[in-house]
Amino acid sequence: MADLDVVGVGNALVDVLSQEADGFLTAQGLIKGAMQLVDEARARELYAAMGPAVEVSGGSAANTIVGVASFGGRAHYVGKVRDDQLGEVFRHDLRAVGVGYTTPPATSGPATGRCLIVVTPDAQRTLTTYLGASSQLGPDDIDRNLVERARILYLEGYLFDPPGAQRAFHVAAGIAHAAGRTVALTLSDPFCVDRHRAAFRELVERHVDLLFANEAEIRALYEAPDFDAALQQVRRHCAVAALTRSEHGSVIVADNEVHVIAAHPVKTVVDTTGAGDLYAAGFMVGLSRGLDLATCGRLGSLAAAEVISHVGARPQTPLAGLAGTLLA
Amino acid sequence: MADLDVVGVGNALVDVLSQEADGFLTAQGLIKGAMQLVDEARARELYAAMGPAVEVSGGSAANTIVGVASFGGRAHYVGKVRDDQLGEVFRHDLRAVGVGYTTPPATSGPATGRCLIVVTPDAQRTLTTYLGASSQLGPDDIDRNLVERARILYLEGYLFDPPGAQRAFHVAAGIAHAAGRTVALTLSDPFCVDRHRAAFRELVERHVDLLFANEAEIRALYEAPDFDAALQQVRRHCAVAALTRSEHGSVIVADNEVHVIAAHPVKTVVDTTGAGDLYAAGFMVGLSRGLDLATCGRLGSLAAAEVISHVGARPQTPLAGLAGTLLA
Repeated sequence: MADLDVVGVGNALVDVLSQEADGFLTAQGLIKGAMQLVDEARARELYAAMGPAVEVSGGSAANTIVGVASFGGRAHYVGKVRDDQLGEVFRHDLRAVGVGYTTPPATSGPATGRCLIVVTPDAQRTLTTYLGASSQLGPDDIDRNLVERARILYLEGYLFDPPGAQRAFHVAAGIAHAAGRTVALTLSDPFCVDRHRAAFRELVERHVDLLFANEAEIRALYEAPDFDAALQQVRRHCAVAALTRSEHGSVIVADNEVHVIAAHPVKTVVDTTGAGDLYAAGFMVGLSRGLDLATCGRLGSLAAAEVISHVGARPQTPLAGLAGTLLA
Repeated sequence: MADLDVVGVGNALVDVLSQEADGFLTAQGLIKGAMQLVDEARARELYAAMGPAVEVSGGSAANTIVGVASFGGRAHYVGKVRDDQLGEVFRHDLRAVGVGYTTPPATSGPATGRCLIVVTPDAQRTLTTYLGASSQLGPDDIDRNLVERARILYLEGYLFDPPGAQRAFHVAAGIAHAAGRTVALTLSDPFCVDRHRAAFRELVERHVDLLFANEAEIRALYEAPDFDAALQQVRRHCAVAALTRSEHGSVIVADNEVHVIAAHPVKTVVDTTGAGDLYAAGFMVGLSRGLDLATCGRLGSLAAAEVISHVGARPQTPLAGLAGTLLA
């Protein structure tokens, strides 16, 4: 019996956010809007250069799962922290919103992973990730029973970077498919797609039922010259694809269905961190309740709008309340 | 030579903030607006009950010292963390704004102290503090040379709770006086005043040149029936007293001078955490530049207004820029 809506698997990270001028990115050799993996020494160096920061739980799939719970969905998260202070913060913030989280923390090895997030005046976010303990996630952390209980298994592309997590990804996907569940993937980042293009293409063609990607990611997947070229490819390969385009809204393609959904209006865009994560949350809540794809897209837009209107990648207002009649 | 404006000594804490309904305070037996000291077990219990939180460096005097630096003042902080992740966060956030901070972290004993802050819909904040490593501050942590170099030594009343910190307080005050420096004290909290009333009264009468207190604190100090009764007492005892009254502004008394300063206008009060801390910052920046007391008060009001217009107790906009002609 599917008594859970979504189980998400991802790299468990605590975000460290500071606001910086554009010159900071140049001085630090950072590519605006992208995610770069670094070792601990480089993470320390960058942190030392950053201004005063705020610490808040993050991790792409974890943000999504918190969004699902905020809509009232039944959600569970799988990801690895260490038994340290930031690991405790991560665990607390999941459980405090009702997300199930039982992955045992690592008791040795690297500290809980961190994502250093530089927010520039244009509200764009640039990510530098030290994976830390999250890279210790392995196939043994995948609980078969848990995956079988959820309508949707949600996997983040970032899992392809640490080898053990990539194996955990495949194990989880295998269990979900065998149980007849929906396997959802987010491509996470265009550079992540570049690093693992062949593997992602094979996944999308053969194992993924629901794909989330933004314009840069889907173009990277197919090395396509423009959005429409990528769109034509993905519709041949994947049952449902939800393609996000920032202020231009999103496009959903499925068999012979196509929906073009407007972005939800936002008064002031403060920090775009988590926009894609929360879009996926809204979409999957709709899907798990059997709503039509256009409504799923609208729920995604709504959740993304909430999260970009403040600093941080997790909702500050219960999404169930904001959804109103869309979920009624 | 006084090459520093302010050296602050205080309990080094990382704030853990969550937004809760009023019923949460009742359920947890918390007194709105006050600060309560708890042991680690109770801190864990309360944290487990709190919703998703944000971690941000805090500590009353540390917030003030960051405010001084934000105005362009030369500032140094003395307070104790442990050599753990939250201690590193605390250290980073001071140094990132140019505050000098050289107190060695504890390498054993309790973890870095935390202040659990519940913000209610009326923007009021209620504090529950686990002192942790901050209680390990002792007289040996007071660097004579540093105190002698600063025009103003700023001490928080909260230091009276841990015995070693109270001794450090007296040592620092003695050094500053011997060097002809100004000794400033903030009373911190009415319950803290109740716990140490006799000692605070003696301090104010004999050793404090500049006193900061809000209405509840100054009334608690003199067990006065109303604000004016407390005002009449304090002007007999203390060279300068700056008394803050939330939206009613502040009253400054010194010898035969009295100034009644309006609160700086705020669009929306979001979180009052740090209002008193930042008022003290603005006031001391003015004083260290030899400005008149009314301008010192206006600088205090300005800094308080900035910090209550967002979540967290440290300025998000450089105060030097906001001060404009007041500091010119």
